[in-house]
Amino acid sequence: MADPKPPAIILTQPQMAENIGAAARVMANFGLADLRLVAPRHGWPQERAWASASGADWPLNAARVFDTVAEAVADLQRVYATTARPRELRLPVITPREAAAELSAASAAGEATGLLFGGERAGLETADIALCQAVVTIPIDPRFKSLNLAQAVAINAYEWGLTVADAPPAHFREGEPPADRAAMLGFYEHLERELEVAGFFHPPEKTGSMVQNLRSALGRAYFTDQEVRTLRGVVTALSRGRGRVLEKLAKKKEGGGG
Amino acid sequence: MADPKPPAIILTQPQMAENIGAAARVMANFGLADLRLVAPRHGWPQERAWASASGADWPLNAARVFDTVAEAVADLQRVYATTARPRELRLPVITPREAAAELSAASAAGEATGLLFGGERAGLETADIALCQAVVTIPIDPRFKSLNLAQAVAINAYEWGLTVADAPPAHFREGEPPADRAAMLGFYEHLERELEVAGFFHPPEKTGSMVQNLRSALGRAYFTDQEVRTLRGVVTALSRGRGRVLEKLAKKKEGGGG
Repeated sequence: MADPKPPAIILTQPQMAENIGAAARVMANFGLADLRLVAPRHGWPQERAWASASGADWPLNAARVFDTVAEAVADLQRVYATTARPRELRLPVITPREAAAELSAASAAGEATGLLFGGERAGLETADIALCQAVVTIPIDPRFKSLNLAQAVAINAYEWGLTVADAPPAHFREGEPPADRAAMLGFYEHLERELEVAGFFHPPEKTGSMVQNLRSALGRAYFTDQEVRTLRGVVTALSRGRGRVLEKLAKKKEGGGG
Repeated sequence: MADPKPPAIILTQPQMAENIGAAARVMANFGLADLRLVAPRHGWPQERAWASASGADWPLNAARVFDTVAEAVADLQRVYATTARPRELRLPVITPREAAAELSAASAAGEATGLLFGGERAGLETADIALCQAVVTIPIDPRFKSLNLAQAVAINAYEWGLTVADAPPAHFREGEPPADRAAMLGFYEHLERELEVAGFFHPPEKTGSMVQNLRSALGRAYFTDQEVRTLRGVVTALSRGRGRVLEKLAKKKEGGGG
């Protein structure tokens, strides 16, 4: 199956060119490209939109302008309205995550989809929301509800991107598994031998629990083989100091005795 | 149980005041308030930050400025670096969603947490990432990776907000929180000082990357304060060997000379 076609982003009466540009930029970040503008307040095109898109020019270059929401969504089969405000309309109210899942499934089934956003100040008219099949509400702190338009686009675009990417992240870089227990044990024993020599374990009867605490603390790091080698180098370097001091002293003595 | 304390947002060398303001605004949208700035390029405070925060003044009013990332994260026990670029460091690479879940659980267990962001152009230095315990990567379209700073904050803040709404159970270790970054830094510097003396760092030009690898490997263990003290004891014991050998030699010499 082909990748599902991303939803169109429809901005209703956007006021600031910077927000249009920022919306285009974050659309590009998540693989969206179909930008539609309904009656932009200061006309179109506006240079500042391109300036704030940081190179994501293609959604702006291809942006289509419409007079009404109805025209802008005419060819779409599924349009969700993103708005924070509860409305009189009896529409499902869903999260961006649920919306992305639904739009993705619909799109995979061949539907043309879209997300409708209101302008910076006025938001969406009830009449325009009524053209939509669901309301998408970003769960926001009720103490500060003023969400930037481009941020609202970002969050929805991000959720869409996740439905496409959904490849679970590799928790660790590939090819670098943790060292096996034998390598770790070798490291522990090396460290403990040197600590023994250095008189670290006192009182002696606590050696067992001290060793266990050290091992369990270090074990949590899941060191790789390379890291275990490095750490053994650390132990050797620190403890070899003794030998070096001896060498230097021996040389000094020789020199002093000459 | 009280609500988990939201992560601090740490912006490293942010360039544009508008982005700082936009970050503060979206922090407020999702209940975050602790904003920290590391060496903002054009100083601080900057009026334009307030202008673009649209009333979310409190994170800006309370923002603290630091010279270095190390200082900015000193009091935090868990710091994740948000960056798109894969690095040499072997740190867990997780999504914003996973990061939010982990930070939320850690915070519910009483940890002080933070999210570190790079500047608009330069991003994050490897040395600064090495102070973090995981890398958060937003799954982004590889064809257009230039994500706006405030948008990156938005997506992570949004994911944090969702975890609060979901109230995840605390399943983190009880009673033994990780040491804060200042304690870890003290330990790292102690270890590195002794390694320097012991001639561990060769060739010298590799010191930086060797230090970073050691730090990121050890950081993954989330050592407790007690463990950090123990490990400093380990370093001291191993390196003090030199002094002891000297003492013994001195005694021997005395004895031999008598």
